[in-house]
Amino acid sequence: MRAETIILNEERNVSLTVYLQEAGKFRSGVKRPAVLVLPGGGYQYCSEREADPVALSYLKAGFQAFILRYSVGEDAVWPNPLDDYEQAMGLIRERAEEWNLYQDKIAVVGFSAGGHLAAAAAVMGVNRPNAAVLGYAVTGTDVRACCRTAPDTVSAVDGSTPPCFLFSSRTDNVVPVSNTIRFMQALADHDVAFESHIYAYGPHGFSTCDSAVQALDGAVCRRISGWVEDSIGWLKDVLGDFGTGGMTEPVCRWHMTDNGETFLSVDCTFGHLMGVPQARTFLGPILAKVRQEAGGVIVAEEDMAAGVLDGMKLRDMLAYAGVPEDFVAKLDAQLSRIPNA
Amino acid sequence: MRAETIILNEERNVSLTVYLQEAGKFRSGVKRPAVLVLPGGGYQYCSEREADPVALSYLKAGFQAFILRYSVGEDAVWPNPLDDYEQAMGLIRERAEEWNLYQDKIAVVGFSAGGHLAAAAAVMGVNRPNAAVLGYAVTGTDVRACCRTAPDTVSAVDGSTPPCFLFSSRTDNVVPVSNTIRFMQALADHDVAFESHIYAYGPHGFSTCDSAVQALDGAVCRRISGWVEDSIGWLKDVLGDFGTGGMTEPVCRWHMTDNGETFLSVDCTFGHLMGVPQARTFLGPILAKVRQEAGGVIVAEEDMAAGVLDGMKLRDMLAYAGVPEDFVAKLDAQLSRIPNA
Amino acid sequence: MRAETIILNEERNVSLTVYLQEAGKFRSGVKRPAVLVLPGGGYQYCSEREADPVALSYLKAGFQAFILRYSVGEDAVWPNPLDDYEQAMGLIRERAEEWNLYQDKIAVVGFSAGGHLAAAAAVMGVNRPNAAVLGYAVTGTDVRACCRTAPDTVSAVDGSTPPCFLFSSRTDNVVPVSNTIRFMQALADHDVAFESHIYAYGPHGFSTCDSAVQALDGAVCRRISGWVEDSIGWLKDVLGDFGTGGMTEPVCRWHMTDNGETFLSVDCTFGHLMGVPQARTFLGPILAKVRQEAGGVIVAEEDMAAGVLDGMKLRDMLAYAGVPEDFVAKLDAQLSRIPNA
Amino acid sequence: MRAETIILNEERNVSLTVYLQEAGKFRSGVKRPAVLVLPGGGYQYCSEREADPVALSYLKAGFQAFILRYSVGEDAVWPNPLDDYEQAMGLIRERAEEWNLYQDKIAVVGFSAGGHLAAAAAVMGVNRPNAAVLGYAVTGTDVRACCRTAPDTVSAVDGSTPPCFLFSSRTDNVVPVSNTIRFMQALADHDVAFESHIYAYGPHGFSTCDSAVQALDGAVCRRISGWVEDSIGWLKDVLGDFGTGGMTEPVCRWHMTDNGETFLSVDCTFGHLMGVPQARTFLGPILAKVRQEAGGVIVAEEDMAAGVLDGMKLRDMLAYAGVPEDFVAKLDAQLSRIPNA
Repeated sequence: MRAETIILNEERNVSLTVYLQEAGKFRSGVKRPAVLVLPGGGYQYCSEREADPVALSYLKAGFQAFILRYSVGEDAVWPNPLDDYEQAMGLIRERAEEWNLYQDKIAVVGFSAGGHLAAAAAVMGVNRPNAAVLGYAVTGTDVRACCRTAPDTVSAVDGSTPPCFLFSSRTDNVVPVSNTIRFMQALADHDVAFESHIYAYGPHGFSTCDSAVQALDGAVCRRISGWVEDSIGWLKDVLGDFGTGGMTEPVCRWHMTDNGETFLSVDCTFGHLMGVPQARTFLGPILAKVRQEAGGVIVAEEDMAAGVLDGMKLRDMLAYAGVPEDFVAKLDAQLSRIPNA
Repeated sequence: MRAETIILNEERNVSLTVYLQEAGKFRSGVKRPAVLVLPGGGYQYCSEREADPVALSYLKAGFQAFILRYSVGEDAVWPNPLDDYEQAMGLIRERAEEWNLYQDKIAVVGFSAGGHLAAAAAVMGVNRPNAAVLGYAVTGTDVRACCRTAPDTVSAVDGSTPPCFLFSSRTDNVVPVSNTIRFMQALADHDVAFESHIYAYGPHGFSTCDSAVQALDGAVCRRISGWVEDSIGWLKDVLGDFGTGGMTEPVCRWHMTDNGETFLSVDCTFGHLMGVPQARTFLGPILAKVRQEAGGVIVAEEDMAAGVLDGMKLRDMLAYAGVPEDFVAKLDAQLSRIPNA
Repeated sequence: MRAETIILNEERNVSLTVYLQEAGKFRSGVKRPAVLVLPGGGYQYCSEREADPVALSYLKAGFQAFILRYSVGEDAVWPNPLDDYEQAMGLIRERAEEWNLYQDKIAVVGFSAGGHLAAAAAVMGVNRPNAAVLGYAVTGTDVRACCRTAPDTVSAVDGSTPPCFLFSSRTDNVVPVSNTIRFMQALADHDVAFESHIYAYGPHGFSTCDSAVQALDGAVCRRISGWVEDSIGWLKDVLGDFGTGGMTEPVCRWHMTDNGETFLSVDCTFGHLMGVPQARTFLGPILAKVRQEAGGVIVAEEDMAAGVLDGMKLRDMLAYAGVPEDFVAKLDAQLSRIPNA
Repeated sequence: MRAETIILNEERNVSLTVYLQEAGKFRSGVKRPAVLVLPGGGYQYCSEREADPVALSYLKAGFQAFILRYSVGEDAVWPNPLDDYEQAMGLIRERAEEWNLYQDKIAVVGFSAGGHLAAAAAVMGVNRPNAAVLGYAVTGTDVRACCRTAPDTVSAVDGSTPPCFLFSSRTDNVVPVSNTIRFMQALADHDVAFESHIYAYGPHGFSTCDSAVQALDGAVCRRISGWVEDSIGWLKDVLGDFGTGGMTEPVCRWHMTDNGETFLSVDCTFGHLMGVPQARTFLGPILAKVRQEAGGVIVAEEDMAAGVLDGMKLRDMLAYAGVPEDFVAKLDAQLSRIPNA
């Protein structure tokens, strides 16, 4: 393994630490996925606890790893930190061949304020990551407590946000757990793939929660350290795993529904379809008939109108009502001609 | 182990299955904690998948286990299912000595519609459980899709709600993930202890996600089955673990702050204290001075006014500002005389 | 789940506890594999610690479970305990249809003296189990310390012994670790499939090592409890896992080599082949030529004569020497005509 | 983290790769334990699969890590590889302060032929490691198949051998499983602390068994990768764990009995005591009396003579016989005056 530190901005003391593993001689895949670690520190410093120990966890799993020490303290005026990220990610993708990594399999892994920066990269970056791991990340307006100029990342979440993995402690006494919940809700609202783990108790800033970085006394929930392996499994789910001929296909899709696609389909949610006038007109009589025949499996019209099934995909609603698959396929073909307004 | 089924309500076909382990001859503690399992099934039936396999998981961990088959189908008119729960929990607590269990260490474990019932027991029950494990539970008004008369449990969450453990699949296509998120948010809003795990992908109704109950094909995230052991660890955290002289003390408190106590303290959140006029008047000049001396560690007055630190405990704010512990103790004594309006 | 106790022998106080799960309504497989638990207790009693907690572990995993309380104390005169086993296993296989289990997927799980009995069932039983899980089992002549008439199981191991899973504590101060090692060596000598885990430290009789059965103080290695899940995974490897159309095929074969088959093959070990005169004569010149051409990959003749490769399969030796597969196939065909004397 | 490669012997192409983590700013302990990795390769080459991926696993856990690429091919004439080890370990201990590690907490981690070298370091090295992790290590005379001049390590095991962690695959078709078993037996014979895991099936040379280094097809037991975390837990057991004021005390002792001490004690095994004439004479009448009073708890005299309890510590025998602790203490004091011949 090669270790190297590249100065990105001498004035602002910004650097990129580069840990590179050999092209896998032992597996036929020659390239590797990568992580870019963004340590926390309240935009006042970059915590060593959340630098090497984190990079090592992903290196062990076969990834290339980078640590960005971004603008902090007086230099942490927005958009400096995000600019630092853009510079780092730009460089990593530019040198992807030389550094033996996949340009489209690069995740950011950020903690606390670094989690804010990672989320910013994911929701408003130009050179976006392909996935984001966000540890007890600051979100919403809470970020102003540590960086007055930093933007709210929650309101910027949209369908183009890459998959996210969230974790935090319920009793975090620095970044309240609501920071995690509201980001999660925004991801759900915009149908972005995510996984989240909120552990019952533990301090802020536990990093990998190994005994080497965190005192494991009675105040720390022992399940916390599970996030490391879980996040690696999840990255393999959304980016692909090491296979004999390179990486395997991801098993977890970016979006759960087709609500964000150009045309409609039966994989749009019922609520979304009802919000597109042309679809509503077209589906109305069909659903009435389905309801009649399904005999109660599909809920009463007034409840439907009240939105109780809005989050369900049409495909699933029809399956539960026992509608034959070929009928569903025909419906899908017809919906595919209606633009997603 | 003894297995028995007690009919609770013949007319509505309600029964309580009882699995009882011997008083622990091998550990000095003679009693055990217990779980009451509430299977799912859309209030139309009680799923066997979520009955024995779940009970067995907790029996293995040393708990006594009960399965309530509550009113479903035409009998699922509210409050019938909740009444069934009350009857079952009443009976369990009444016969606690005979059944060798702790009256105050009984958790409900519910799934889907059974998760709705478990949550209802936790937020509006008379004979409340001491903890609730809620698996892909239906919440909010979504419950009307399967039981039109069932109440919204989210709006009933308050400070008296017992600790909850939530889990679900991000891609649940029957009960959308928002059902889990909004309940979690309500728990956070009312400062109730919880843990939550939302797995990246998987179907509705996975139960324990063992190969014996769920086909483990490519559509099921392998991390899901982790909830079983995690929930057992969590129950030991909030109810206590098996010790040599009975159960140990819980390590995870019911509430994180004192926002719900009769008098104020430094363990109330900043936002809560600012909402109590007497406290605001008292703390104003003190905080101004702290801010001045702390030199920027406590955020600017206007940000504070904007609520960016509202979720932080006063104790933690002062600690971060470097305020000496004896000063904090004096402050605490003074706050303890102000009623929590 | 149904719980029932059947008296097998009133005089000797022998009973079979039966825990039966429903035919799997939720999976298409209607039958289940099973375990027969044999608790320890030095042939003086049957330990409750190693009865229900163990049965529950496998029930949770989807197995049917039985507990045999065999002849102990004055009744533990050999072959009484083994006769009890035969009676129990006979009954289980006889009622396999009624009890919803696979006749050929029944493992014994024994501890300490019960581990001796489980091993006896596996090596000298008439109605043999299909796999054996042996926890800190007494073996060799050490068994005489608790039952003077009980036989040595190690010397009875042969190629017909079913696969075994062994575990114990290195510092077991009642049944020394050599009891586990010598049984393991016998299994290796007779090419019987096995898995084994010897944990660094811990007392005798830890059972499942859950906090509900074992005080988890500093004298107990925390890795120990891993044997439970590991043994379940292993049983699925050697008996098959739950699949959608019944059980899947086992992935772990009973034997590693063909040393025990009726005719020879390239999957016999080199040492075994050299011990069959006809094979030695036939292979001699071929191997000499291979050695010449392989240029050192196959070890020197004198070392070979000294037996340094005796444990290696001929197939693997030839593969390492770079011998083409079609030549190996031809050799295999020729060996398949030589009886395994 | 700093990465550096130091040439130890240019002629023989021997090098030491050094991966150094910062003194732990985040924990009060400033030093770290270390591992010296010895990759496999049949003494013909040093496998990259067993180099960085292994080092990274321990680095992640907080250790300093070193990789020794020792003499192979024509240079692998004994004692060259062992000399390389001595040079490497000498250097590491010499620069311990500078490299921020504990001189007396350094483990070797070797695989296959590298496992042979690691075991050689542990049983016949001058500068011995403090613990040894041996992966599918070649032992006994089998080593001659890859290095004709290499010594048998099994026969060199004695009471001065440091604790060992062994693991291998039952179906290893290159290094037969007996290589692991006989080393384990030697450790047990000389009362050396160890832990061992033999997995049911899998190929030779699986290294960490991560998907990044090993194709995880049907031929690989999924439990195998568990050895990595297990070995880290074990190293913490025998060397100590990271604590707030440096390392904690080890919880697992080097020896289980006092058989290797200068004077006798009740923590010697019964068999050992009976082999020391002075002890036998002294203990004879005492044990006869104990047997008489214990009424059968201690086995019959002829069985005792037959050695059935030889592996049990006298302390444990007396405890089982119900002999009071103060009597045991007095006995211990008397034994402590008898030299261990």
